[in-house]
Amino acid sequence: MIIHLDMQSEVPIYTQLEHQIVEGIAAGKLQPGELLPSVRQLASDVGINLHTVNKVYTRLKQEGYILVHRQRGVVVNPEGMPSATSEFLEKQAVELRPIIAEAILRGMSRQELAEVMERIYAEIALPKKEES
Amino acid sequence: MIIHLDMQSEVPIYTQLEHQIVEGIAAGKLQPGELLPSVRQLASDVGINLHTVNKVYTRLKQEGYILVHRQRGVVVNPEGMPSATSEFLEKQAVELRPIIAEAILRGMSRQELAEVMERIYAEIALPKKEES
Repeated sequence: MIIHLDMQSEVPIYTQLEHQIVEGIAAGKLQPGELLPSVRQLASDVGINLHTVNKVYTRLKQEGYILVHRQRGVVVNPEGMPSATSEFLEKQAVELRPIIAEAILRGMSRQELAEVMERIYAEIALPKKEES
Repeated sequence: MIIHLDMQSEVPIYTQLEHQIVEGIAAGKLQPGELLPSVRQLASDVGINLHTVNKVYTRLKQEGYILVHRQRGVVVNPEGMPSATSEFLEKQAVELRPIIAEAILRGMSRQELAEVMERIYAEIALPKKEES
């Protein structure tokens, strides 16, 4: 999986990195049990701070998406992903609320918003074949 | 409209304030042409820095949601809200994408995600009567 970070973006680097690993798992590009680069290697490959990679791995571990073994290294959780717990759904609602509020303010209907959501869902879950 | 800020939250204060004003407009609690408190007054009422309020008003002004008049003060844009421009839709997709990716990772179906979206949309656009 190729990580692409936008150093000019308003979105912090650690957030971008976290989002891309999450999307990689969601899209099936990263499979349960798959080995991820070590903190040192990922930091060096992507050209960012060790501390930034550490922060991302710590957050992903806390969510139960990856495991960090001293010997075996960092792996996508081989037991599969946690489900949409009530705690997760609460966090999700907090994140979605301002986006939906702004859509309403801009005059978007439920239908229009549902279509946007549907399109992005399909883009992630059913990715096109890699372009050659 | 009552502003409620959570000083313990991970979400920065200026983001919380911006979200609440946007949601106030979306919900129709703040009407086009309605006067908002001055920077100084809002900062004092809510107990935050002048600079924080200034930052929020500047962003809301850039989006076209409010106007800042030297004499008349700060008002919700009396000409109504801007529409969902292609620039806005791009920003919206960037914001939605990681939330949808994480929902997929957690095994949520399109239908489940659509229902969450629908529920939040209704909560904002069709607010319950104020509880007594």
